[in-house]
Amino acid sequence: MNKMIYADNAATTRLSDAALQAMLPYMQSEYGNASQPYSFARAPKAALAKARETIAKCIGALPEEIYFTSGGTESNNWVLRNIIFSGREVLVSSIEHHSVLNAAKEAEILDHYLPVNYEGIVSPTALTSAISDRTALVSVMMANNEIGTVEPIAELAAIAHKHDCLFHTDAVQAVGHIDINVHELDVDFLSASAHKFNGPKGVGFLYIRKGITLDPLILGGAQESNMRAGTENIASIVAMAAALEENVIHLQENKKHLRQLEECFFAQLAGEGIKCHRNGALSSIPGNISVSFDGLSGEAILHRLDLKGIMISTGSACDSKDTQISHVLKAINLSESLAKGTIRISFGKYNTQEDAIAIAKALVQIIKAK
Amino acid sequence: MNKMIYADNAATTRLSDAALQAMLPYMQSEYGNASQPYSFARAPKAALAKARETIAKCIGALPEEIYFTSGGTESNNWVLRNIIFSGREVLVSSIEHHSVLNAAKEAEILDHYLPVNYEGIVSPTALTSAISDRTALVSVMMANNEIGTVEPIAELAAIAHKHDCLFHTDAVQAVGHIDINVHELDVDFLSASAHKFNGPKGVGFLYIRKGITLDPLILGGAQESNMRAGTENIASIVAMAAALEENVIHLQENKKHLRQLEECFFAQLAGEGIKCHRNGALSSIPGNISVSFDGLSGEAILHRLDLKGIMISTGSACDSKDTQISHVLKAINLSESLAKGTIRISFGKYNTQEDAIAIAKALVQIIKAK
Repeated sequence: MNKMIYADNAATTRLSDAALQAMLPYMQSEYGNASQPYSFARAPKAALAKARETIAKCIGALPEEIYFTSGGTESNNWVLRNIIFSGREVLVSSIEHHSVLNAAKEAEILDHYLPVNYEGIVSPTALTSAISDRTALVSVMMANNEIGTVEPIAELAAIAHKHDCLFHTDAVQAVGHIDINVHELDVDFLSASAHKFNGPKGVGFLYIRKGITLDPLILGGAQESNMRAGTENIASIVAMAAALEENVIHLQENKKHLRQLEECFFAQLAGEGIKCHRNGALSSIPGNISVSFDGLSGEAILHRLDLKGIMISTGSACDSKDTQISHVLKAINLSESLAKGTIRISFGKYNTQEDAIAIAKALVQIIKAK
Repeated sequence: MNKMIYADNAATTRLSDAALQAMLPYMQSEYGNASQPYSFARAPKAALAKARETIAKCIGALPEEIYFTSGGTESNNWVLRNIIFSGREVLVSSIEHHSVLNAAKEAEILDHYLPVNYEGIVSPTALTSAISDRTALVSVMMANNEIGTVEPIAELAAIAHKHDCLFHTDAVQAVGHIDINVHELDVDFLSASAHKFNGPKGVGFLYIRKGITLDPLILGGAQESNMRAGTENIASIVAMAAALEENVIHLQENKKHLRQLEECFFAQLAGEGIKCHRNGALSSIPGNISVSFDGLSGEAILHRLDLKGIMISTGSACDSKDTQISHVLKAINLSESLAKGTIRISFGKYNTQEDAIAIAKALVQIIKAK
């Protein structure tokens, strides 16, 4: 039996040892409710404050600008639905994650999707043409989950602000993987999900720029400065902070390592004379490879790689059961034949060059057997 | 230094060993995204299905009637805000948790709170008088978090249904602690939170009766049959099922044990000639003791017990930083002097008779020192 090679890190990542070790005490001895006034709440309360500081530092924010949520989907919904519930208009890109797109659909703004070019980039010109006096919020993801394209967030945010609009970025694929400073980007909201950067599932955060008002999506108790009710999930929050801090400390070496894995993979394919079409832009998230093989089936490739112990994806993590062409591949105008032959390999920091070469070799075998 | 005695189980509980052991594999080796189509998703997918079955069985539901959420607050918000967003009216009791009350407040139905009697019971007569043609949903908690009163849910649900209203119960304090069968109770929605029954924080569920439509509160991906988006938090869900199953298997002995702890506590107080007023009803959640000491300060008692290593609460878990009289104690018409002298001791299955006696002795010392 083959050792498994996991190369679907855009779907989820392995919990880091640092994150697991950080969370265990809060699942065993220090289980107190952080909102209680007695001494047994002190350790969880202090851990909560420290996690907030750590995370804030990792993205250049203030601790009081970080609000803990149950994940990226909740963070995205929180911002989008706030604007929509108040009857205001939102402008989102056509390649957003479904947690943004489906929230936007509620607002019946179906013609308001910002187009992208063939690389998946939202151009500042496109935003300038689309934005109107009615637009209250612009939401563009920092990095796309299927093709890895990194968007020009700072430029887009500047345009939004010039038009007195708020700017949100779904940074679920970016946080812990590329350099992020919310003040340099000048965004008003930023969403993140721990399990995409080697933290646990079921926890995330939303950065809300100081001074900006947002109504709670989940209301009840006074947790998170009355902004997000529910007993604080201390163990997961602490683990998220540990995972993010570790990734940010090693960010440059991780990026370099992941670029090397991409190179190994493509060198191996090229050496075997395999032709493929790489999707996305030069500015892509490190380790994300979206490639299309004309005339082949991405789904069939996925299952054949699976039989060889290799885990990859065809489309986005959330709807890969669906064999229809993804909205992202449609938006970049990929031909149907290329779109159907698309796979996504997403390397993570635990992958090795041997993994990259093994995946390329397995792919070559599958393609040549056709 | 004293060994800590934790008697604030209505605020949160210690994770059971069974729950911790159940979740560890999904935080270590089996970290796959359950929604992916490859073999590495099989174990988490199967675990998700098994957890749903286990939980359904524990409350007499069908697996497809269980939807996983980030906790009781989200579950309560999901139901309440659905009705409110659609412009319909809700009728809630005056002693609900803030996650129900604050959602209801949004609907500007401030005079629509169902009254309770001095024991905290919502009488069927009160519901019959308050319900109107405009009422779309009635929400009454199964057991109150401050005074422990168990409400006559089956009778109340029958009245709601007679008036073509839906019925929701916030069963956060009840699930895993008293016998629950959703079909016998005939409720349409039931909320639960894992960390109140020795499961992890940050996870819960909502029972939605088959055939009833609810819009998602958190939307995006197709998880939870398109009803609750976000990557499934497998580790926590599996742990929640393990914790609940363990509690339900030992339900009768746990109840008996907790009643004995209550008796030990009161026998000790009585033996020392201490007079107190017990709040709540005969039908209270096992282990929950809300007692008032006329002329004393509940807050001062809490801090003095804390110095002796004993953790208890004054009011509800979510606003015990607040020294104002709780809405629950106001609703049962407790005098201001008794209300201010109220503490809540909530025993859990890990407490012993020695704990109950030690708490009573410490209380006697504090009271006699006044």
